[in-house]
Amino acid sequence: MTSRNISILGSTGSIGCNTLKVAKHLGDVNVVALAAGNNAELLAKQIVEYSPKLAACADEDCVSRLETELERLGASSADFPEIVCGEEGLVKAATMEECGTVVSATVGAIGFVPTLRAIEAGKRIALANKETLVMAGELMIAAAAGSGAEILPVDSEHNALHQCLRGEKMSEVRRIVLTASGGPFRTKTKEQIENATLEEALDHPTWDMGDKITIDSATLMNKGLEVIEAHWLFGLDGDRIDVIVHPQSVVHSMVELVDGSVIAQMGVTDMKHAIQYALTYPERLPNALPPLDLASISELTFEDPDLDRFPNLAIAYRALEKGGTAPAALNASNEVAVRAFLDGRISLPEIARINGKLVDAHEPESADSLEKVLAADREARSLAEALVEASRTTAAAINRV
Amino acid sequence: MTSRNISILGSTGSIGCNTLKVAKHLGDVNVVALAAGNNAELLAKQIVEYSPKLAACADEDCVSRLETELERLGASSADFPEIVCGEEGLVKAATMEECGTVVSATVGAIGFVPTLRAIEAGKRIALANKETLVMAGELMIAAAAGSGAEILPVDSEHNALHQCLRGEKMSEVRRIVLTASGGPFRTKTKEQIENATLEEALDHPTWDMGDKITIDSATLMNKGLEVIEAHWLFGLDGDRIDVIVHPQSVVHSMVELVDGSVIAQMGVTDMKHAIQYALTYPERLPNALPPLDLASISELTFEDPDLDRFPNLAIAYRALEKGGTAPAALNASNEVAVRAFLDGRISLPEIARINGKLVDAHEPESADSLEKVLAADREARSLAEALVEASRTTAAAINRV
Repeated sequence: MTSRNISILGSTGSIGCNTLKVAKHLGDVNVVALAAGNNAELLAKQIVEYSPKLAACADEDCVSRLETELERLGASSADFPEIVCGEEGLVKAATMEECGTVVSATVGAIGFVPTLRAIEAGKRIALANKETLVMAGELMIAAAAGSGAEILPVDSEHNALHQCLRGEKMSEVRRIVLTASGGPFRTKTKEQIENATLEEALDHPTWDMGDKITIDSATLMNKGLEVIEAHWLFGLDGDRIDVIVHPQSVVHSMVELVDGSVIAQMGVTDMKHAIQYALTYPERLPNALPPLDLASISELTFEDPDLDRFPNLAIAYRALEKGGTAPAALNASNEVAVRAFLDGRISLPEIARINGKLVDAHEPESADSLEKVLAADREARSLAEALVEASRTTAAAINRV
Repeated sequence: MTSRNISILGSTGSIGCNTLKVAKHLGDVNVVALAAGNNAELLAKQIVEYSPKLAACADEDCVSRLETELERLGASSADFPEIVCGEEGLVKAATMEECGTVVSATVGAIGFVPTLRAIEAGKRIALANKETLVMAGELMIAAAAGSGAEILPVDSEHNALHQCLRGEKMSEVRRIVLTASGGPFRTKTKEQIENATLEEALDHPTWDMGDKITIDSATLMNKGLEVIEAHWLFGLDGDRIDVIVHPQSVVHSMVELVDGSVIAQMGVTDMKHAIQYALTYPERLPNALPPLDLASISELTFEDPDLDRFPNLAIAYRALEKGGTAPAALNASNEVAVRAFLDGRISLPEIARINGKLVDAHEPESADSLEKVLAADREARSLAEALVEASRTTAAAINRV
């Protein structure tokens, strides 16, 4: 199967929609499966436009809404793709024989098992779902080594590193440096961050993304998760993965070689670049993006991250150093805490306080089976939920004083 | 012969001395020949320290001074290397069988024939003498294609491009971008440049180099010569070779691929980096240079070059487009004009006026033989000298008014 026969897990999300735009631009990409969650309306439109063999969505309810939508759009049931649902449906989309590349772009833990199955089946993985590597990098990398599956990162930073490393040997790499925009609170005081509103936190300076990842960018947890992701993708320990704050997001990441040379990848901030790269690698093909105009941008700045104002980054390094199930526990805790912040239940800095308590309390087990990883995930979620509640109780008590 | 058996043409110059430091640092480099001009004192010290089999210098007079120096340093004549002189001596150093890599670091046209002979003999060339490619790129590249000689650029910009291109195909390159510090007159007005003193022109902001190349940096002719050099090294036409002014000289150059991705090489400004790279390629080895600290540097800026204040850059593109012997003629003209400026005979902007007149008047012949190239060089030198004299006469007449 060529790498341009693709299945998209998470086709109605931001990466999914951009993948379809890239497919259209390239022309010779064959969309064999589209898997979405609950957005039956958009999935139906995508099916009509791209004619996949298989479509997957969240559940039976969504399947019937999808069929209604397809009919409404004038598709005759003879032209319907095979429609499946649930995790089983995602796994089917991820492993079908016609598929060469799986674009893994679901949000959160749901993409985990299907992506692992795709790796085991030797598919190329265009990986946008960083949680899968954070939770179970050990399993993923071992599976890829076994099947020969290539994992091509779609996260702009890791995609940049992949590009910087094309002509280099890992044995000649001194360290990799992930760039971070610094988020909306880069120049804010600790006090301002303490009182940050949801609206302020969602106002990301350079990238337009979903809510969860935007909050993670505001707390630098996103960069922490990327450090863990980089550890698995490039096989380096945490002390050889650095982060530098670069507000313009023009340099997407860098590699420092043993001779001190630094290779950087730069570009415009559009995720279609990394998606296309992952679909066409090792070829590079023209795309419709505007060229990078450094003279117009004029200035690139760099500063060290401030771990005092952004403790989540240090917490991620601690989880990576603890190893085993600790990153999975951190990821789960962070999902719960970010959700609680988005729901107005806790303040922004409370996210890092909860994550820190959880990682420090976590007793890691080896993350060499799906069961252990999922158990750590479940346990961390319920502990984080309890910490959210405790924090609310404390805050309420303080407010009463 | 391994690439670490080296002959250095121009061992007492800045690149030559740095090459010996790199050789010492690497430990396993065997210096088989040292060729210098007239600096018998330094050459003698280098011979005592590095024990080459062959030493070459300018002429018989220098040979006897060298022997005296060697005796003064306590070397017994039985330990003397074979000592040769003249172009023949340089050619011998460049082609001796024991030599795997020739570091071509003489200044100006003198290194031309020996470097060509080394290419014909299939040696790896660590090329620091850009005049050789500017004058006779066609001959050099054809000879390298014939013998299989590798040409590894030591100029920091071209070395950077070589690094950026390690993992890329030339067919997937959209353009290359050479960075320029902008020199000491980057922020000066046309009038200030018109009245620039020698001292101001020699005050280069980021690199410490010889006088000729420092003046070339002040007029941007250095970048123009580098555009021509890049044309031959990477096989791209002038319209795919751009220049961007980057005063911090941290980004040494960049490659833009067809997908819009930009790969940049960065590092500290020390020519030992590029020299070591050329000696050890494709390996990268640790060196003693400090790491690049972007957070301390904090800011990188970029601007388009101003061809009105720095017309030499446009003149170089015109010479490249004319082709054939035009770049050789420009190089000769520029050497004469810079010498005249260094001697206080003409003003700084007069260099570009002379170069411009010469290139526009030049009727290029094909540069497919050494004779034609050298004839163009001679002719351009005498025409440029006449233009220098004419300019002095005019200036004197104006002063009399």
